[in-house]
Amino acid sequence: MSIGRTTANFKTLKYWGKRDKTLNLPTNSSISVTLAQEDLRTLTTAATSSSFEKDNLWLNGKEEGIKGDRTIACLKDLRLLRREMEAADASLPKFSEWPIHIVSENNFPTAAGLASSAAGFAALVVAIAKLYQLPQLMSELSKIARKGSGSACRSLFGGFVAWEMGDLTNGEDSKAVEVAPLSHWPSMKAAILVVSDDKKDTPSTTGMQSTVATSDLFEHRINTVVPKRFEEMKKAILSRDFAAFGEMTMKDSNSFHAVCLDSYPPIFYLNDTSKKIIKLVHALNEQEGKIIAAYTFDAGPNAVIYYDQEHENKVLGLIHKYFHQVSGWEKVSDQVAQFEDLSIPFDTEAYKGVSRIILTQIGSGPQETSESLVSEQGLPK
Amino acid sequence: MSIGRTTANFKTLKYWGKRDKTLNLPTNSSISVTLAQEDLRTLTTAATSSSFEKDNLWLNGKEEGIKGDRTIACLKDLRLLRREMEAADASLPKFSEWPIHIVSENNFPTAAGLASSAAGFAALVVAIAKLYQLPQLMSELSKIARKGSGSACRSLFGGFVAWEMGDLTNGEDSKAVEVAPLSHWPSMKAAILVVSDDKKDTPSTTGMQSTVATSDLFEHRINTVVPKRFEEMKKAILSRDFAAFGEMTMKDSNSFHAVCLDSYPPIFYLNDTSKKIIKLVHALNEQEGKIIAAYTFDAGPNAVIYYDQEHENKVLGLIHKYFHQVSGWEKVSDQVAQFEDLSIPFDTEAYKGVSRIILTQIGSGPQETSESLVSEQGLPK
Repeated sequence: MSIGRTTANFKTLKYWGKRDKTLNLPTNSSISVTLAQEDLRTLTTAATSSSFEKDNLWLNGKEEGIKGDRTIACLKDLRLLRREMEAADASLPKFSEWPIHIVSENNFPTAAGLASSAAGFAALVVAIAKLYQLPQLMSELSKIARKGSGSACRSLFGGFVAWEMGDLTNGEDSKAVEVAPLSHWPSMKAAILVVSDDKKDTPSTTGMQSTVATSDLFEHRINTVVPKRFEEMKKAILSRDFAAFGEMTMKDSNSFHAVCLDSYPPIFYLNDTSKKIIKLVHALNEQEGKIIAAYTFDAGPNAVIYYDQEHENKVLGLIHKYFHQVSGWEKVSDQVAQFEDLSIPFDTEAYKGVSRIILTQIGSGPQETSESLVSEQGLPK
Repeated sequence: MSIGRTTANFKTLKYWGKRDKTLNLPTNSSISVTLAQEDLRTLTTAATSSSFEKDNLWLNGKEEGIKGDRTIACLKDLRLLRREMEAADASLPKFSEWPIHIVSENNFPTAAGLASSAAGFAALVVAIAKLYQLPQLMSELSKIARKGSGSACRSLFGGFVAWEMGDLTNGEDSKAVEVAPLSHWPSMKAAILVVSDDKKDTPSTTGMQSTVATSDLFEHRINTVVPKRFEEMKKAILSRDFAAFGEMTMKDSNSFHAVCLDSYPPIFYLNDTSKKIIKLVHALNEQEGKIIAAYTFDAGPNAVIYYDQEHENKVLGLIHKYFHQVSGWEKVSDQVAQFEDLSIPFDTEAYKGVSRIILTQIGSGPQETSESLVSEQGLPK
């Protein structure tokens, strides 16, 4: 039995566009920050036994079975690596031939569009790799997670992670690498405003295909804008330059949503509440005379606002001022008295468009845990 | 005394970006449709007399005086042309030396962002050119109107109008030309949904400057996307190919708003209501299996929906179904019974974001009128 936990990651340099749908090979390299375990995490336990009837998967307590092509592809790759080990060492039990049970739970707000599938596939790969005692490095395993969900490959590392797009058609060089670990910049924090939305977003896989096929601005983004930004953002992270990191994060979020809007038909992920939050962050930075907070939005209206611990009382103070009505502030209730009261005008009704706040920070990536979701009989507890 | 009327024009290929702020020289060529007189028009009367005390201007009944640099620049150019005439023919009265009175009225909904300044400067130039009996062709005069407001140059023609960006630094080749007159495609109609908005838009001059200076996608738009589309859109107009014209109109609107969003800080003109209207138009076209309606949005949330008369009962039928509560339908009250009832699902509350509908059609451009706004004494009536 093996247990793994992984967490969500939020792109600061966006992944948008596939050059190979089946292998999840991207049209550009990307960078993300992996967030802390306690707030947004998937806990996955894998167990194998010759006595199990068949491969099976339980998600949040519900038996799902192993159906999706992407899950099947990950499982196949992991079994192949295990088979190679077994072939080299006859004393090893034949795990690769036994059915596998996977039990997974996440604590993401339901359907909030918070990259739960990335965390899910990362946790699945890590849990099975541990069960199989695979010797491969995380970058190697990230190629398997990538086939499950592109962004999942970056969740195999903590801290700041790059997904190098690679050139090969078989995807063997399209993998995640660590830019810097959590310990390099542990004061990086994030406030996630979960924005309510009345409409269903375009699923990201469909959206990407549409952008690649129809946006006239997309080629310029992936060939010219992103490659330059990729190098510059790595430098900003390595030198812990929040202003540079923040500016690029905001610009790349906007650039990504711009090519979505330039798709035909256009794809909209930002709503009026998202736009208000964007303006609030710019107003804060302008008043401070430097960038102390940076927003990014994935394929949905939720805002992720990065800031450094040193400016927490300002950044959270401003967000608290206008969004104190939403749930999620309990975590910092003893800090509220220190929050600064900045005078930045804002729509005092904007909180109505937000369902909750998640206060979190940079995380250490996949971790083993003693907490198991599987009983001795190999079934969900 | 001379009287001119001109109307608004709505860009189908967007003008966004100046290479020269003072001369209003654009970074790309653009195309627009000039709309009909009765719905959105500026009526301007110009009078000159040696007995007037000074140059003066009244706008919608209010004495404004001639203050703005742009108005002064237009007046100077027009006087220069008149002076040349007077120099060549001594029998002509010395209008160029006399004070001028300009009285202007428009019927645009207040501050609705419906290109009223373009119509205003076009009417001013036409009225004074008539008063001065200038022999210059409209394209020549369009260069003067352009200095008032870039888009104004296109309002000097009816029908479909191109603004050729030109190359010269003095702007002498940056002028409007007719693509096709009203008579070429008289069945082109437009429904304008005036969208309410709680925030002040970024003024277009400021917005353009910001996009030119900060958007990473902008250069690609103006150097690659627009030049190709400019030629293709002219062809679509000349062949009365609504599907091609409509698709390019929608794509260019989206491309323009994409580079606004890619600006730093980002500029938003579309709001949630605008986005709903965009989706409705795409849903209609999809159900019909061809493009019979096309939206375009200028620097604000108002939707201009173009369609051909032959599909009026479908297009207006759908808009009426979901926006019948807003004012502006009186004009077609006898037609409502023929409207088709299409079954396209939509947010039935969306009408709350729209203040009125303006039903209009392609127009013939500047026209002389017997209606004068100036009394015999040279003052507003």
